[in-house]
Formats: sequence, structure tokens, C-alpha cells
Amino acid sequence: MKTMEGYRGFLGLLVSALLLGFLAVIFALIWVLHYREGLGWDGGSAEFNWHPVLTVTGFVFIQGLAIIVYRLPWTWKCSKLLMKSIHAGLNAVALILAIIGLVAVFDFHNAKNIPNMYSLHSWIGLVAVIFYAAQLLLGFLIFLLPFAPPALRAFLMPIHVYSGLLIFGTVIATVLMGVTEKLIFALKNPPYKDLPPEGIFTNTLGILILVFSAVIFWIVTRPQWQRPKEPNAVFLQPNGSTPEGNDYSMTGDFGNMDKSDVDSEAARKRNLKLDEAGQRSTM
Amino acid sequence: MKTMEGYRGFLGLLVSALLLGFLAVIFALIWVLHYREGLGWDGGSAEFNWHPVLTVTGFVFIQGLAIIVYRLPWTWKCSKLLMKSIHAGLNAVALILAIIGLVAVFDFHNAKNIPNMYSLHSWIGLVAVIFYAAQLLLGFLIFLLPFAPPALRAFLMPIHVYSGLLIFGTVIATVLMGVTEKLIFALKNPPYKDLPPEGIFTNTLGILILVFSAVIFWIVTRPQWQRPKEPNAVFLQPNGSTPEGNDYSMTGDFGNMDKSDVDSEAARKRNLKLDEAGQRSTM
Repeated sequence: MKTMEGYRGFLGLLVSALLLGFLAVIFALIWVLHYREGLGWDGGSAEFNWHPVLTVTGFVFIQGLAIIVYRLPWTWKCSKLLMKSIHAGLNAVALILAIIGLVAVFDFHNAKNIPNMYSLHSWIGLVAVIFYAAQLLLGFLIFLLPFAPPALRAFLMPIHVYSGLLIFGTVIATVLMGVTEKLIFALKNPPYKDLPPEGIFTNTLGILILVFSAVIFWIVTRPQWQRPKEPNAVFLQPNGSTPEGNDYSMTGDFGNMDKSDVDSEAARKRNLKLDEAGQRSTM
Repeated sequence: MKTMEGYRGFLGLLVSALLLGFLAVIFALIWVLHYREGLGWDGGSAEFNWHPVLTVTGFVFIQGLAIIVYRLPWTWKCSKLLMKSIHAGLNAVALILAIIGLVAVFDFHNAKNIPNMYSLHSWIGLVAVIFYAAQLLLGFLIFLLPFAPPALRAFLMPIHVYSGLLIFGTVIATVLMGVTEKLIFALKNPPYKDLPPEGIFTNTLGILILVFSAVIFWIVTRPQWQRPKEPNAVFLQPNGSTPEGNDYSMTGDFGNMDKSDVDSEAARKRNLKLDEAGQRSTM
């Protein structure tokens, strides 16, 4: 009963996130197609316009989905390797879109003799893209490839989660700075300060993006919506096999920290530590 | 040994946070005193300048300290009521400084016939101040005053933590938008795009603020640096008294969720749930 309520709550928030993210992409498209010069690849404003569209699509919406993909309850029966691949794949798509969006801006600036990399938006945005690429590469090497020892994964996982969420938050802040910059530069007659329809519309896009990120942050920080650990199976079946036995070894999924815990004494000690951590982290 | 390392790590990060936050305040002061028109209360630019100085001091630095105040190990022997009062007090100071900073901008705009509340910065910033005030009021009524039942506190605590961190992140994003706006408006000859010294200096201020918030987010999300729960005492001493017995009742601190758990069966069930949550949240 309580679980069903929790599930409905999760579904409601997931649908909200999808609607908000989708709406943000639509708003970005309407902004450039209706209020601005449309889309093109000609060194002009139409090329610049790929920057907001691709950033909102990839760096905001797709990155947001990549962050919560482990939390979809109907994927909990899928192998961890499959889910990791989807997580990495979505982030890779987001990175590629963000980079194409960056190229569009540099092209536009160079064609118009506008300097690159002077604004706070550009400084923080470029750092965010570089950190995002590094995060993706390290995540791939350590969590997706089967070579990293479980102890290293266990040590790096909290850092991976923290830096992923920090980058996402930084990207949101950078997008809001970008909207601010563009509206000040582009709205001239009437200017931004007279709040023409384009100003109201694009401010609303900024609000949508912020609320989308707030829903993503809520979903990803609820302990009850976390993908259950496979390891309990290890505890139940001391021979080390799991219910999904063959599937499990087929996937080559070494993300399961608890593989190193087949020693029941080590497992007991670990559980005591987790119990303590649980008491702290749930209050 | 491990604890000592953890303690040193905490101290290092705390000192970094203090240095970054202090440096950000100094940078804000240098910005307005050296590069801009100084400080005053005359309806002119010198009045506007209180806005960045008070926002960075109150809404960034002091709010950041308020967020991590429970995590200082040497305060763990202090009563929870004292720490809650410090947490609420710091947030109240931050709110007052933010509001004075807001008044300065509205005054400046009105004196100069510049419209209010047109930019995305102003929309999100005003919402952040309103939510921050509501968060402070609700926190005071529910967690500081001794009337709210423990079940309500237990239910609202994760929401309080989430909304507090969301507001802090939103404030950081809003400050970065504000820096962007101000540099575009104020730098004219040479303009922002030619990156004069003031542009580099104030971009650096933005980076300092972002890194400060990153350190605060790291400190506040490490489970091992959370203030230990007092309740274990309740479990050890079934008569319900605690080691700090008198002090505890003197403070009137009802923040201790576990007071409702003197029923050992309820406590056992709760610990099982926490154990489960712990397994999920630490991986």
C-alpha cells in the first residue's frame, strides 16, 4: 500500500520532469524560430541559435534524464550493465549536442568578429563541458569497463555522484546566464527592460529549466527511489550465484560492490557500518 | 586513525570554504570600491552597489555557513537547541542582508527610472528571497519551537534539507546572472567583450562563488560528517534519560526524533528500515 503510493508519487514526478524538460525544448525552439532568426549554419544568427536549442535539448533535458535513469522502477529487473550503458549513452549524446552547440557559437563569433571566451557564462560553461567530458570518460573507464577493482569503485562512486550533480547544477546556472546575456544583447527595440513578449517568453523558459532541475534533484536524492542493490542475493546464496545467475555473468557487470563481501564476517561488519550511516542519513 | 584523517579532511575543506567565502566578500567590496562608484545611500550607483556586497556577504557566505554549522565536530557536544538557534540566526542575518540589498536595487531603479522586475535575474532572485523567508519561518515554527510532533518533524526534515539546498543553489545561479547583467550594463569603454581588468576581476568573483558553493555542497552531503544523533542514549537507557540528562530537558530540544521510539519494538522496526535505507544510500 505504502509502496504503491510511493510508486504513484514517483510516476507523478517523472511525468512532471518529462513535461517540463520537453516544454523547455519546445520553448527554446519557439524562441529561435518565432522570435529570432531561425536555424541555419551560415555563420550568422541562425547558426548561433543552435547553441540554445542544443544546450537545452542535450545539456539540460537529456542530461537530466541520464541522471534519473537508474531510478525507473521498471528497469530494476534489467541488468546493471544495460542501465549503465543507457546512462553513459545518454550522457554521451548530451555531450555531443553541447559540443555542436559550442562550435555554433565560436563559428558565429568568428564570422562576426565578436571575441570568444570573455563572459562569465563562457568561462563557467567551457569548464562545465570539459568536466562533463572528463566525468563521462572516467565513468566509462571505472564503472562500465570491467577492470576497476570493487574497492576503487566503492571509493569513487560518491565522488562520481557528487561531481555529476554539481556539473548538472552548474550547467543550469550557466544556461540561465546565457539566457540573460542573449536577451540583453538581442532585445533592442523595445529593449529587455521594457519586457516585450520575447522577454516574458524567454524568462519563462529560464523558469521551466530551473523547475525541471529542481524535480530531477528531488527524484535523484530520495533514498527510497534508489535502484535496489543486487547483492542481497549474494547474502542469501552463499555460493555466490545470483537469481539472474547466467545473465549476471553474461553482462560482465562488476558494479556490484557486494561481490567482495561474500566473506560473511566482512559483510556483517559492513552492514553495521551501513546501519550507522543509515541512521545518520535518513534523519 | 581513520577518524583523525576524516577530521583533518573536514578541517581542510572547512578552511577552504571559509577562505573562498571570505575572499568572495573581499572581491565584491573591491569591485564596488575600486572599479565602481563605492558605497552610499543616495539613489545612485553607490546605493546599487550595496546589492552585490550584501548579497555575497549574506545570501552566499553567511547562508553557506548556516548550511554546514551542524557539521562542525566541536559543536556536537553543544545542545541541539543551541545549534538550531545558530542555524536559524545565521539564516535570519542572511535574509535581512539580502532584503536590504533588494531595497537598494529598487531604490536605485526608481531614482533612475529604470523598470523593476523585468530580468530573469530579478524574477528568480525575488522568488528565491520569498522561498528563503518561508523556509526560515517554517523551520522556526516546526523545528525550533517545541510544539511540532516528532512525526511531523521526521516527515518534514528531508523536505527542509532539500528545499534549503535548492534555494542555496538557486541563489548561486542568480548571483552569477546578476554579475553577468551588471558587467554587460556597466562596462562600456572598453566594453565587457574586450575583457578589461574589471571583467577578469569580476568573472573571477563569479568563479570564487561557484567554487565556494561546491565545497559547501560537498561538506553537507558527506554522511560521515553529520552530527551524531543523540537518540542512541535513549536506546541504551530505557528509562528515557540521556547522558546530558538535565541539559537535555533544560534546552527543551524536541528535535530528537527518537524520543517517540522508546517502544523497543518500534525502535527495532525503525532500525531495520534505516539499515535498508543505509544500504541504498551509501552505495
